[in-house]
Amino acid sequence: TFMRGIQTVTLIPGDGIGPEISTAVMEIFDAAKAPIQWEERNVTAIQGPGGKWMIPPDAKESMDRNKIGLKGPLKTPIAAGHPSMNLLLRKTFDLYANVRPCVSIEGYKTPYTDVNLVTIRENTEGEYSGIEHLIVDGVVQSIKLITEQASQRIAEYAFEYARNNQRASVTAVHKANIMRMSDGLFLRKCREAAEKHKDVKFTEMYLDTVCLNMVQDPTQFDVLVMPNLYGDILSDLCAGLIGGLGVTPSGNIGANGVAIFESVHGTAPDIAGKDMANPTALLLSAVMMLRHMGLHGHAKKIETACFDIIRDKKVLTKDLGGNSKCSEFTKAICQRVRDLD
Amino acid sequence: TFMRGIQTVTLIPGDGIGPEISTAVMEIFDAAKAPIQWEERNVTAIQGPGGKWMIPPDAKESMDRNKIGLKGPLKTPIAAGHPSMNLLLRKTFDLYANVRPCVSIEGYKTPYTDVNLVTIRENTEGEYSGIEHLIVDGVVQSIKLITEQASQRIAEYAFEYARNNQRASVTAVHKANIMRMSDGLFLRKCREAAEKHKDVKFTEMYLDTVCLNMVQDPTQFDVLVMPNLYGDILSDLCAGLIGGLGVTPSGNIGANGVAIFESVHGTAPDIAGKDMANPTALLLSAVMMLRHMGLHGHAKKIETACFDIIRDKKVLTKDLGGNSKCSEFTKAICQRVRDLD
Ligand SMILES: CC(C)[C@H](C(=O)O)[C@@H](O)C(=O)O
Ligand SMILES: CC(C)[C@H](C(=O)O)[C@@H](O)C(=O)O
Repeated sequence: TFMRGIQTVTLIPGDGIGPEISTAVMEIFDAAKAPIQWEERNVTAIQGPGGKWMIPPDAKESMDRNKIGLKGPLKTPIAAGHPSMNLLLRKTFDLYANVRPCVSIEGYKTPYTDVNLVTIRENTEGEYSGIEHLIVDGVVQSIKLITEQASQRIAEYAFEYARNNQRASVTAVHKANIMRMSDGLFLRKCREAAEKHKDVKFTEMYLDTVCLNMVQDPTQFDVLVMPNLYGDILSDLCAGLIGGLGVTPSGNIGANGVAIFESVHGTAPDIAGKDMANPTALLLSAVMMLRHMGLHGHAKKIETACFDIIRDKKVLTKDLGGNSKCSEFTKAICQRVRDLD
Repeated sequence: TFMRGIQTVTLIPGDGIGPEISTAVMEIFDAAKAPIQWEERNVTAIQGPGGKWMIPPDAKESMDRNKIGLKGPLKTPIAAGHPSMNLLLRKTFDLYANVRPCVSIEGYKTPYTDVNLVTIRENTEGEYSGIEHLIVDGVVQSIKLITEQASQRIAEYAFEYARNNQRASVTAVHKANIMRMSDGLFLRKCREAAEKHKDVKFTEMYLDTVCLNMVQDPTQFDVLVMPNLYGDILSDLCAGLIGGLGVTPSGNIGANGVAIFESVHGTAPDIAGKDMANPTALLLSAVMMLRHMGLHGHAKKIETACFDIIRDKKVLTKDLGGNSKCSEFTKAICQRVRDLD
């Protein structure tokens, strides 16, 4: 069932622990005979003509050609005016939907069980517009920009996602009681999309209420869709419920199949190069990528192997509560992948 | 030790369950011989000359005279353009600091124990400026307004609060990596206040990181200070950690001792008038009020009685897991207050 042509994916290993966890993912993909060929590209921001920040042309060209990318953590330069590389990538490829499934991992204990939800974050505008002004001395304004087009696009995406992933409901998260025009527009577009997708249940909820309900009983949520900043907040909150950024996958989806999957944890410079990193978040992001590419069999196999090893508790990296090295954890998953064949 | 003159407090019972829980609080205050006299005022928004929404003159006059208010839930009218009564009150009396202590309640089980933190929310500007525009068809902007003056005021307040309440640290919560100018200004003012209060430890953290850490281990936090919207979100999240809005007190603090303490839950119209409501949030808000007025002995006695009854688990309202009426729960607390004498 895995007979397909080999597809090329742009791999951005990233900084710090990025290269180690990328190697881990490649080894596990090899063990699973995933029909993927990697094209490695470094990404550091460079300044083009006129001082505009951009990603290196060879990385851009690779992504434009392959359409699919997998990305490790990138360090955020501290130079003033330097944009976050993550944001620059989202912008460069118009990756308008940030998708983060948060599913409880059996055997990895947190205060919550049976979490099974997906946050879908509008990834291009809102509070991330970057437009700010000094009005007079001591008075600053930041502009939150909400457009009909982007709101409609993300709302549609959320309902399509729910349908394609057998999810029963979509909750629009907003503060339209306060930001009546901007969140109001966002909410209206969600309602319109709901009208078109009557097979998916639709609810709307204030962001503060979502946060309160989320920590009390996350099992009540399914797919959540929201503007940029709210997504930033809620996706991290939800990651916390299942064990943190070390185990949470993420995908940035654009039009025409373009997508970059990424681990959203940091570069962990303190443990970089020490064979101590946990590759789970990047691996599960790569599993999301396989599903995005239609390679469901390989995705399932790798995911199962990863969860099996975590449930077994015999070979775990330090952050997961064990004392194995990254390479040992990786080897255990590879072995399990082969056993599953 | 309780020999003082009787002080008058403006009581805004509010809508729905408001009157019942207000009565409960008054009975418990009587039992504790709190030297408080209540001046009841109804608050519904009225339109002044020029259509400006305002609170009724007799309520305004009462608050101006008494300076201290206690307030039950107010229903939010659905008429377009009608402001939230809560926001209108905060604005009318320039209540710039919203303070919500979140402390685990012994005997009331949630996934968390030993939560003991305070969120301090800037209550007058930020994302709640109310300034929004339609730029062109389908493009809307909302303006987040951050001023040096309000940021400095709230930062100062947070450090003063920490010092006066024997709290060791203040964390500034921000997204200055994204909103560099506005959150940057807020953060700068927090840093300046930290410089002046070297006895209190200062840390700064991104809002998303706070949310993630909060659900993983809330015990790491102490006092948190943040712009308006972040406070709206985090205060509800934290309320969720200790059992929800039914048990969480809140105070809105202004200059020169002016303050309104309020339960932040809704009006619960479905159970209104049925003697089923839980008065805990309003009672604990009233306890905050007593402390604000310097009546520490009465505050301690009432708080102890309330927590004793909850810990005993014999007389609890439905939402707290029991099957007693509001009046029975109230009577139990009154009895306990008297026993403590
Ligand atoms: C790195 C940072 C700019 C980014 C954000 O704020 O969106 C991060 O928190 C995320 O969620 O991917
Ligand atoms: C009622 C609503 C306008 C208010 C807010 O958003 O601030 C509420 O959520 C609160 O936290 O007091």
